[in-house]
Amino acid sequence: MIKATVYVTIKKGVLDPQGVAVQGALHSIGFQEVESLRIGKYIEINLDMDDRAAAEVQLKAMCEKLLANTVVEDYRYELEA
Amino acid sequence: MIKATVYVTIKKGVLDPQGVAVQGALHSIGFQEVESLRIGKYIEINLDMDDRAAAEVQLKAMCEKLLANTVVEDYRYELEA
Repeated sequence: MIKATVYVTIKKGVLDPQGVAVQGALHSIGFQEVESLRIGKYIEINLDMDDRAAAEVQLKAMCEKLLANTVVEDYRYELEA
Repeated sequence: MIKATVYVTIKKGVLDPQGVAVQGALHSIGFQEVESLRIGKYIEINLDMDDRAAAEVQLKAMCEKLLANTVVEDYRYELEA
């Protein structure tokens, strides 16, 4: 089994309304030192396969097809042992 | 300025409906090898402060008060240089 982690983040220059809202909420409860904040997704996947190279190919395909909207989001992934 | 990353994940044993839905969607488009999948939040924060110890205290407070629902979510954070 291969354990993978996928990070999906909003591209630079694209507005992140959720991040703006959370930043505003943090300011309103006294965390004035928050200069900027952006929220992405953190996806933990267990893959029932053993070939790491094949797993990378599959992960890339999953990100492109479903996990990330590549028009406005970037993605990266890491494999664990 | 200190750059921090916060990871908010759903606790083990707590149902992750979003993860279940995405796993189902991946299966339906042919990614049968996905055995399990859980989705958390990945938050990038720029803090307008220089004291790393103070930043850790602030981050912990932000997580406890707003970023994570500690009843059902775990959090961890990392500081960059």
